[in-house]
This record gives sequence, structure tokens and C-alpha cells, in this order.
Amino acid sequence: MTYATQLSKSDRIGTDMRASVLDPGGALTVQRRPVPAPRPGDVLVRVSAVGVCGSDAHYQRHGRIGDHVVTAPIVLGHEASGRIVAVGAGVDERRVGERVSIEPQRPDPDTAESRRGDYNLCPHVRFFATPPVDGALAEYVTIGSAFAHPVPDSVSDEAAALFEPLSVGIAAVGKAGVGIGGSVLIAGAGPIGLLCAQVARVAGATRIAVTDISAERRCLATTFGATETPAPDHAAAGNGFDAFIDASGAPSAVRAGIAHVRPGGTVVLVGMGADVMELPVSLIQNREIMLTGVYRYANTWPVARELVTSGRVDLDGMVTARFDLDDVDAALSADRIPGAVKAVVYPGGVPDSLNDRTWSGVR
Amino acid sequence: MTYATQLSKSDRIGTDMRASVLDPGGALTVQRRPVPAPRPGDVLVRVSAVGVCGSDAHYQRHGRIGDHVVTAPIVLGHEASGRIVAVGAGVDERRVGERVSIEPQRPDPDTAESRRGDYNLCPHVRFFATPPVDGALAEYVTIGSAFAHPVPDSVSDEAAALFEPLSVGIAAVGKAGVGIGGSVLIAGAGPIGLLCAQVARVAGATRIAVTDISAERRCLATTFGATETPAPDHAAAGNGFDAFIDASGAPSAVRAGIAHVRPGGTVVLVGMGADVMELPVSLIQNREIMLTGVYRYANTWPVARELVTSGRVDLDGMVTARFDLDDVDAALSADRIPGAVKAVVYPGGVPDSLNDRTWSGVR
Amino acid sequence: MTYATQLSKSDRIGTDMRASVLDPGGALTVQRRPVPAPRPGDVLVRVSAVGVCGSDAHYQRHGRIGDHVVTAPIVLGHEASGRIVAVGAGVDERRVGERVSIEPQRPDPDTAESRRGDYNLCPHVRFFATPPVDGALAEYVTIGSAFAHPVPDSVSDEAAALFEPLSVGIAAVGKAGVGIGGSVLIAGAGPIGLLCAQVARVAGATRIAVTDISAERRCLATTFGATETPAPDHAAAGNGFDAFIDASGAPSAVRAGIAHVRPGGTVVLVGMGADVMELPVSLIQNREIMLTGVYRYANTWPVARELVTSGRVDLDGMVTARFDLDDVDAALSADRIPGAVKAVVYPGGVPDSLNDRTWSGVR
Amino acid sequence: MTYATQLSKSDRIGTDMRASVLDPGGALTVQRRPVPAPRPGDVLVRVSAVGVCGSDAHYQRHGRIGDHVVTAPIVLGHEASGRIVAVGAGVDERRVGERVSIEPQRPDPDTAESRRGDYNLCPHVRFFATPPVDGALAEYVTIGSAFAHPVPDSVSDEAAALFEPLSVGIAAVGKAGVGIGGSVLIAGAGPIGLLCAQVARVAGATRIAVTDISAERRCLATTFGATETPAPDHAAAGNGFDAFIDASGAPSAVRAGIAHVRPGGTVVLVGMGADVMELPVSLIQNREIMLTGVYRYANTWPVARELVTSGRVDLDGMVTARFDLDDVDAALSADRIPGAVKAVVYPGGVPDSLNDRTWSGVR
Repeated sequence: MTYATQLSKSDRIGTDMRASVLDPGGALTVQRRPVPAPRPGDVLVRVSAVGVCGSDAHYQRHGRIGDHVVTAPIVLGHEASGRIVAVGAGVDERRVGERVSIEPQRPDPDTAESRRGDYNLCPHVRFFATPPVDGALAEYVTIGSAFAHPVPDSVSDEAAALFEPLSVGIAAVGKAGVGIGGSVLIAGAGPIGLLCAQVARVAGATRIAVTDISAERRCLATTFGATETPAPDHAAAGNGFDAFIDASGAPSAVRAGIAHVRPGGTVVLVGMGADVMELPVSLIQNREIMLTGVYRYANTWPVARELVTSGRVDLDGMVTARFDLDDVDAALSADRIPGAVKAVVYPGGVPDSLNDRTWSGVR
Repeated sequence: MTYATQLSKSDRIGTDMRASVLDPGGALTVQRRPVPAPRPGDVLVRVSAVGVCGSDAHYQRHGRIGDHVVTAPIVLGHEASGRIVAVGAGVDERRVGERVSIEPQRPDPDTAESRRGDYNLCPHVRFFATPPVDGALAEYVTIGSAFAHPVPDSVSDEAAALFEPLSVGIAAVGKAGVGIGGSVLIAGAGPIGLLCAQVARVAGATRIAVTDISAERRCLATTFGATETPAPDHAAAGNGFDAFIDASGAPSAVRAGIAHVRPGGTVVLVGMGADVMELPVSLIQNREIMLTGVYRYANTWPVARELVTSGRVDLDGMVTARFDLDDVDAALSADRIPGAVKAVVYPGGVPDSLNDRTWSGVR
Repeated sequence: MTYATQLSKSDRIGTDMRASVLDPGGALTVQRRPVPAPRPGDVLVRVSAVGVCGSDAHYQRHGRIGDHVVTAPIVLGHEASGRIVAVGAGVDERRVGERVSIEPQRPDPDTAESRRGDYNLCPHVRFFATPPVDGALAEYVTIGSAFAHPVPDSVSDEAAALFEPLSVGIAAVGKAGVGIGGSVLIAGAGPIGLLCAQVARVAGATRIAVTDISAERRCLATTFGATETPAPDHAAAGNGFDAFIDASGAPSAVRAGIAHVRPGGTVVLVGMGADVMELPVSLIQNREIMLTGVYRYANTWPVARELVTSGRVDLDGMVTARFDLDDVDAALSADRIPGAVKAVVYPGGVPDSLNDRTWSGVR
Repeated sequence: MTYATQLSKSDRIGTDMRASVLDPGGALTVQRRPVPAPRPGDVLVRVSAVGVCGSDAHYQRHGRIGDHVVTAPIVLGHEASGRIVAVGAGVDERRVGERVSIEPQRPDPDTAESRRGDYNLCPHVRFFATPPVDGALAEYVTIGSAFAHPVPDSVSDEAAALFEPLSVGIAAVGKAGVGIGGSVLIAGAGPIGLLCAQVARVAGATRIAVTDISAERRCLATTFGATETPAPDHAAAGNGFDAFIDASGAPSAVRAGIAHVRPGGTVVLVGMGADVMELPVSLIQNREIMLTGVYRYANTWPVARELVTSGRVDLDGMVTARFDLDDVDAALSADRIPGAVKAVVYPGGVPDSLNDRTWSGVR
């Protein structure tokens, strides 16, 4: 299958564009905004598809995530793909026309963190849809040239958008040190948990237990790599796990998960929950468990592209609903529908060809 | 499928046994020898299947490998499976009857190397079929209890025997640091090269190039995980590889392989060739390539068991010929037959059930 | 200076010996017990010096540490040196007469943990002075031959005893990843905190901040490597630390310490405090901090010997009081005296030569 | 001691400057060239001191190093310090006046290598004094703002210049994995070998053997951290070394060094010698030795600054001769004088205050 298309009339860039704007009160409206001009080193991307993340919904519902507060109108969306339509100074003009997956961050390359390769930890990083930086739920966005990663025509627009949550899974499984013949316990069968399961399988794990309070989601996990899907309170079966990845953010799941890790094993906290949690420190000490978290990702896009183009990770199968830009409000609520995994917004309109693949009942 | 069997009359241990003995002149004869008594901490294993390794053939043909010289009669064979039929002092008697894969080494647990986990590097290690230590081409062998690894009944006797070469592949791919979305170039499509390809695939590599001078072997590599099989002189296509594993021992292949590794990549020398080789050191320096070798393995059996029982590595498919103990001479020559991959000797006789699966023309 | 001595009459081993025994009620008495016979692979050591650890005092005062409960009489003491006076079967007889530092653990070499080098995490490990295993506050103890580490005559008996807490420091600084030019914050200026500071300095750290609620202890830290000794609530000065080592066990210190670690930095919990602590998980996530603990040590004695014999770590200077076996009760209380660092018990009697070096006011 | 100075009249920048230019025939002349203008993101540095490296001399004597050929006039020198006198667009103007040590490379921050922290391996990196890029033997140079590292006034101009070779030592010792209580063998007691010895000592190595064919240089090594200085053919004494660092480039030294590394140890090739060397591969395999090289450095300047300002590395003591810009020819030959370690050129003239510290007989 090929997702190749020609640059067409719609690729002619106007002076303004449509964007879905969240105001601090939680209201979403489509507004007209100027098309941004690519700065030196940037590219301008016409957005094809944008995945909806739990954090987008959280901003709408709660107006903040931790210290990041919506105090002014903001465009949400940080899982995006598109096509380069213009380039800034210093960027090879031949990139115009490229289909790309967007890595939605702008680190400062000169900080100590960036220089040593941890550019996600750069203290000056600017990230899509994190106040006050606008995101991708718009017709056009700009991004640093090196953060617009080309994708081959075998990758769909929505799969290219989902390189972003896949990157979280790649980062989490990498930090967890999951290797061949290894075992991992994953709490939470939402998109991130399911992607962690998929990546763990690619990394050679032969025991992948995914827990969730929802039996429906546990069932879904089996499709995406889980070898067992115990209810949360039965995860104790068998030996200790080499690693535990929390994709739930639930303190009780975190505590239960840590207790199932073998001596010398690893705990990676991905899900954002309470700022402070009670943790079993004596257990961490006695087993010399290594506990850490992931904050986004660095250097994951090339890996994501390999995993998707080789068919070893399935992103298309995770999309359960599609929406136009006018329906972002519905898209942000789609996670509340049983069986939903991932909603995708098409700022240029959902392609007709996908209508019959659209998850029933939503659109 | 189950390979479970009952302990039967043939499990009654006599006082002597049959063993295939190589004399320093290269002659192989089946001789009667006393059944060894398990020492404290050991188990006595009735041998089921023994894989034939290139090193076995090398000892017969050349009388030595490096500093190891056949100066007295020796029993070859170090890839073995069997069933525990007796235990030494201090070993749980309930282990009698267990089907096991043998890790054919006896390190001293008290050396610095063993204590830090590198027991394969223990200077006092005693290894099967390495002069003057006898190997497994006999009806019975003893081994340290912890080095007789139980295998489930879903694993065949010959697959259990081949945990040993699989362990070499696991060690090599581990040293190579092959990870998800990574690329690896493997020189040599013999059993070790093919197992490296299989393990690299399990580890998530998406580009696995296997070279060999034989077109037939290159073709075979595709079955076992290779994504491309360039002739040795065309390996240069595309970007640099993350890692190069040499399973050929050929100096020209080693040099060509190193040149195809990306900056910061890894080279692992598995194949034994010349003691000394001309290597491109300026290239190693300028690209900060990490070059190392594998000397057997440590801590690989649990991983091997996971990979085989989960079906992610196929060992049964690699067996192309089977022999009785009287035919070890033929077994050692089987590698010279085009299309041959791995020969297996059954000290108790090739089971009838396998006769129809036997590779034509050999037995 | 040399601590060499000849084997003398006192090295003739009788049939019984004196041992300091703690009963479950907390009372300490010197009792006569049979001299243990070295089992195969063991050595018998006449104990020279035994350092007193906070855990010894804790067992006396509280009758338990976590799940380890004093339900029967037990001999305390796990920081010990001595001289080999007899060997068990299989041990080289020439070791008799060797001065040794005792690594007070008996792991099972056949567990997965031991085989991969993490023998401290072996689930079957038996450890001195941890119920129900007797410790070293006695005239003689046995230990596995490989766990009786020879020390040169330039190392004093009490320094050799203190290889044990030094090993905790080596393990902690190693886990913390402290390297050249690095910075580390250490909470707690007790013996472990001070040893961590010494080891951090040897490892090349150039910023070593040690906090303690006691100004006297902070002052002491400067002697042992600290470059700054802020009061606990002023540790925030300057940039984030590469690592934080908690040697206090105080939840408030742990939380404050974590907040001072840079993105990508490390936290190592050494001090035992509450089983459960409230930890700032969002901070751990956002900074991708790696948090872990140390459970004793593995493979540290050769390093300890190097650091002490090269003069880069000072153990003798940490001894502030010395006691006979009859005065263990006083020794266990010595940590309550201001300025005290480490008390040492001599089961054979404090040597006259050390009396003038004894810390004033205690003995 | 303070090296603080005021910006003075000489800091007024003219339109042209003096530079020492090497022509392809090997002749060195001081020429007038335009003062470069700092591009966006760059700073303009008035050069204070420039260390002379063996590679500078090699370019003069042989006209090439490997593939890098002097085909046009070039300015040599890549070990430089100075003071920022102007900044390009986008750089904080308050940096004018800063004393800095120059990291003489310009990587492309957008390559895969740079993004993962290995910016020294960036295929587009431009490096001072590597054809066709001009170096620092001139009154002014420009460099990326983040590559002009501020130094405190306690660091002399020549020490700040020598952060560059120190960085090579930091990179080499880091790759060698030298740790506390470890042992390292270093071949070659030139500036790099001596700096490796110093850094190994800071890293906690307790056995540092430095070999050299010159007895005078071996003696010198003792001053800079060596614990033993065997003649090259006596290095075998004692146990295997944890690591071997070659700073000689001599094939015979490399081969001898590898043979002295323990199983599981490390070899780092720093010295540039033949493109191809015969290496003992079976030894590398049987001992699982890890062999690699260093290509410059990444992320070392902050470490260098810590080591120098803390007094743990001595750079000033390594300077044995000082020259004016007119005497670069003599400076490049200074390495041939017995006892010489490091020559430094002062493009603005050797300060009077240093004349009495100048190495006798040279200037």
C-alpha cells in the first residue's frame, strides 16, 4: 500500500489558516490565524493528521498539568504528521513536498543536556501544546528542519502522527532495559501501555503482562503483544518481572507493580499521576531496584520509523476514531467511549477513503 | 507437541557405557568406558542428543585449536541434552528424571571473574571437549547441577542440545548491542551466523544483512531472519551498520565488515581464524568503533530457554542430519555437504520417529 | 608501618571460645561457646577487630530490623578482621596464618543472581549478625575461603575490619555513578556518609556536599573529603548535583536531596528508614532521575584493599573508641557520644599499643 | 593566584591581524589577514595562548595526516585560550570580556551523531587546523558561542589552552572505564600519555604504569601520576591491567599492551600510527577484551574545568617552552628537545611575567 500523493492545489499556502483554539475556560473554537512563516532552520508543514493524547483532554478538562497552566488561548495537539510546503533560510529547498512525522519539540542545542544527547531534558525546550507554545491542531505548523522526520509512502498519515506516542513507548521500554527473553509488567492498557507492550515484544520480551481495571482493555492488550493480562490484583503470579512500566499513573498500580519486580530489576514511571506518591523504599533498597521516569524522548524517531516500516509495530490498528478540525471537542472526549484507543483529527478534513474504516458511532 | 517420555528400562544405569573416542592421530572409535559417578554438587545425565560443532571437526582434522592440543584420547561433543539419572551429594534427588540442556562448562565460582558474573572468563574453567576434558559424545556425562538446565517437554532433545550454539548467538548479539530498529551485518551463514541472525531479529533489528561466499547459504539465511543477503563484496550498500558480527573467521571478511560499521558502532568477532590479523585501526579510531570478541557465554541458558519455548527462535529447523554414535566420523564430515547446517548425534541411537525427517543422502 | 605479627601461642585453638551474645530482651553477656569447625571450603578465623555498626545497636535497642527479628540469642558484629588459623577440606593449607578482612556473607553461587555477579541479591544469602546467623563478636568465626580476603601487613586490624562499611560506600558511590569532575550531595555524616564522601573524592568528584543536622559532624566531614557542608536546609546553593546519596534514612532529607539532583542525575538510598516514604515522583519523572538503593555489596573487597593500601581512603582515622569483648554494651552505645565516629571491639582484648590512641573519655 | 586582567587598549579590534601560515611546502610565515567577523551564534576571541600539538608538527613535516592533506595555506593550532572581544547575532553581549578556553570544533547539531551526544563523530564537523579549516595560531579566531567555555581567573591562559589535550585524556580514560582501585597501563609518556596518567589518577586508579622508550620521559611520568614506569619490555610484571591506553601510536607497543590486559579489560587507542596494524585477535576474543579508539572528545570541557580549578590536574607544570608568533617554527620543533613536554605560543607575545619561568635553552 502506498500513501504517496502529489502536491496539489491545496498545497498552495494562503495567508491565514484554520486552527482549533482552547481558551482558558475550556471552550474550543476554530479560529482563523495567520499561517506561520518558517524561521531560519525551520520548515513549514501542512498538517495531515493529529493524534489526540490524554494530556490534550486533561488541559481542556482541568486547565493545567502540573505547573503548566492554560492562562491564554492555546492550540492543542502534539502528535502530528504532514507535508513540508515551505522551508526557512538555510534548509534544503528539495525538502518541499516531503511527507514527515513531526517531533514536536524545540530544544536549545547548546545546553549541557542537549550536547550530551538528552535534549528532551534541555531546560529551555519548547514543546507543542504545552503553555504557552501552540500545538498542531491547525492547518499549518513550523518545526525545526531536523525535527521534521521524513516517512516513506508506505506509512499512512495517521501512523506517521502516532510516531509520537510510539516514541514514548520506545523511550520507556529502553529505560526499562527490556531485552531478549525478558519479562515486563505493564500497568494500564491505554495507548501508551499498548505501545509499550508492542515495543517490548519487538525488543524480545517473552513475558509481557498488561494489567488494567477494564476487562475490555485487557482483552485489547492481547492483540498488541501481551502474553498475559491479569486483573490488577492477580499480577503476582510466577517469578518477579525484570521490569515494571507504569502507564496508568495510579499510585496503587505503581506500588503493586514495584512489588512484582525481581532483585536488580527496573521500574519506569510513564503515567503522570500525583506529584507525590508513597513508595516502598525498603523494597527498592533490598532488591536494588532501579526506579526512574521518562520525560518525552530523544533520538526515537529513526527507531520509530524502522519499527513501523518493517511492520513490527502496528500503529494503524490503534486508531479507533477520526474527526474533522471542527470536531476536536468530540475527539477529546473519545477516550471515554469503551473500546476507544486513539482518536485522530484531520485538520484538512477526514479523507473519504477512511470513512468506511472509521470507528462506528463516533463520526 | 510434547517430547515428554517416561523413565524406562534403558534408564537403568550400568557400570560402563559407550563413548566415541578421538585419538591424537584423528581416528574415532567407539569404546567402552566406566559410567562416571556424579561428584558432590553434580548430576549424572544420560545423553540424548549432541550437536556437532565446527570445533569438533577441527580437532579431528588438525589435532588442535590454538593452544589446545589433542595429546591423549578425548571424547568430543559439547552441545548436549539429556535426562538426569542420578545426582551427587547435596543435589535435590527430585531432579532425577528431569530433561535438561547441558551448559558444558565448570567454572570455579570463587575467582574474580566468576564472582562478577563473567564465569566464562574464569581462568580455571573446564570445558567439555577441550583437551584434556572429555565431552558429551558418550552415553553418560556428569555436570554441575546448576549447569544442567531443565527444559520443558515442548522442547525436543535436539533443540535442547542446540541451546549451546544458540548461547553463542545470544552472547554475540548481546555484545554487539543490537537493539530495536537497529542494523547488523553478519559475515558467515554457518550455524553460528544463522543463529546470530535469528537472535538479532528477536532483539528487534530491522536490517539484518548476512554475507557468505556460498549463494546456497545466503539463501538459507533468509529463512532464519536475514533481511538482505549480499554477496560479500556488495555489503556496502546503504548506510553504516550499527554492528558487525563476524561468524566466518576470515580476515578479509573481518576487514570488510569493520569498514561497514557506522561511527560509534560495534564489531564482535565470533569466528576463530588466524591468531593475528591486520585490522584497520585508524578507521576504528576515527569512528570510535568498539571491537571485541565472545568467548563462549555466561548466563545465557535461561534466555535460550525463553527464546525457544516462546517459538521466537527455531532450532529444530536447523538440523539437517542425524547419526548414531557409531557414525560420528560421518557426522563430523557432514558440514562439507552443500546445504548442511547442523548434524546431531544420538548416543542412544537415532529415534525411529526422526528417521523420516533425516536429511537425505547422509544416513 | 607494619602490622605483621607472628602466629603465637594464642593461635593455638582451644575447644571453646568467648562470644558476646545478645538475647531477645536486649541483654548482652559474654558466653563460652564451642569453637566452630571449618566446613569444606571454609576457613576458621581468629577474630582481631570488629567494627560496631548502627545496625548492631539497632538490634539491641529494638530487637529487629524490618523483617529480621531477634527471636533467639545471637552474636552481633559483621565488620571483622582476623587471622586464618585453620582451613576446611579443599582449601589450601598455606592460607593458615594469613591476615584477612572478612566479607561477612555466604551467597549460594548457583542462583541466577550470584551467577550474574549480583551475589548480594542472592535470595539464599546468609549474612553475619542477621537473625538467625551469628556474627563476629566472638573469638573465632568461619567464613567461605573466598570471602576471607588477605590484607597486607601495612593495613591495621581495625582498618581491615572497616573494609566492610567501606564496601557500602564503594557500592553506593558506584551506583551513584559519581565520576571525575562530578558533584554529589550526601545526607548524613555518620560513618557511611563519611565513607561515601571519601570514596566520592577518590572517584574524582570535585564537589562533595555533606549535610547533617549536627554541626560537629559537618565539621568532621570536611576532614574526610567534603568540599562544602551546608546545613540541611541550605543545600540548594548552586547547580543541581549529579547524584544524591542518602546515608541518613530521614524521609525529609531524602525528599530534599532528590530536589537538588540535576536532570538525568542519580539518587542512591543507603540509609534504612521507614519502609514507605512519600517521594516526589513527578520530579523524578520530569528530570528522568534514576533512584535506587544499595543492599550490602558485591565484588568490593579488592577495591577496598586497593583504596586503603594506596592511602587514598583513611579508615584508621575513623576509629574513635576501642573496647574489649566484655564491653560490647558500651561499644554499642558509643555512637551516642558527640564526636564519635566508629567504635571497634577487640575480642582478644584491645592491644596495649592502641591504648594511647584511644579516644578520650570512652575507655 | 589570579589571572584576571582588564580589557585594555589592545582589546580594540583592528581590521586585520597577524597569523602564522603554513604553506603546502612546509614553510611558516607570519602574514596579515583580515580579522574574521563573528557569524550569528559565534564569538570573536582574541587568542591568548596556543599549545603546540604533535599533529601541528606532523602537518609541517609531512604535509598530511591520513586523508587530511595540506593543499593550500593553512593556519595551524587547535589548543587555544583567549578573551571574547565581540559576539555575533544572537549571542549575549555580556559575554564580551570573558576569558575562555576554546573547544576547537564546529559540529552540525542536527546530525544523528550530534543529537545523541557524540558530536565529535558528526560527519560534517569542522575542526581547527585540519585542512581546509584554519586554526588558532593567529591574533583572533571565531568559534561557536557554546564552544567558547568560560574559565575562572584562577586558571592561567596556558592552562586554559591545554584544556584541549586534557580533553583527549578525559575521553581516553573515560572510554577505558578506569575506576576506583583500578589499574591502567599507558604506552607513551608524551603530553597525551602524561595527561592520561593524571586523569587516571583522578579517576581513582591505584596502579598506573607508564611506559616509554625514553628513561627521561618515564621519570617525568612519575611526577604526573604514574605509580610505576617500567621500560616497555618489562610491563608484564604482576596481574593483568584493567585497561591499556596507547598514546604512542607504535604497533609494537599496542601489541605488547593488549597482551597485558586482563580478561574483560579494555584497550583504547589514542596515538595515531599506521592505518593498519597486526593485532592479536585470538587474544582479544579469548579474553573478551574491548578495543576502541578516541576521536577527539565531546562534552569534556566542563569536566576539564572542574579538574583544573580543583587543582586535581596540573596543566601549568606541563609547559616547558614559550614562543612568540614569529617563532612558531621553533615551537613546532620543541618536541625534539629532551625533557620537553609542551610548547605554548602567545600570538600577542609571551608575557614578561613568564619569561623567568621559560624553559631554559629554548627561548
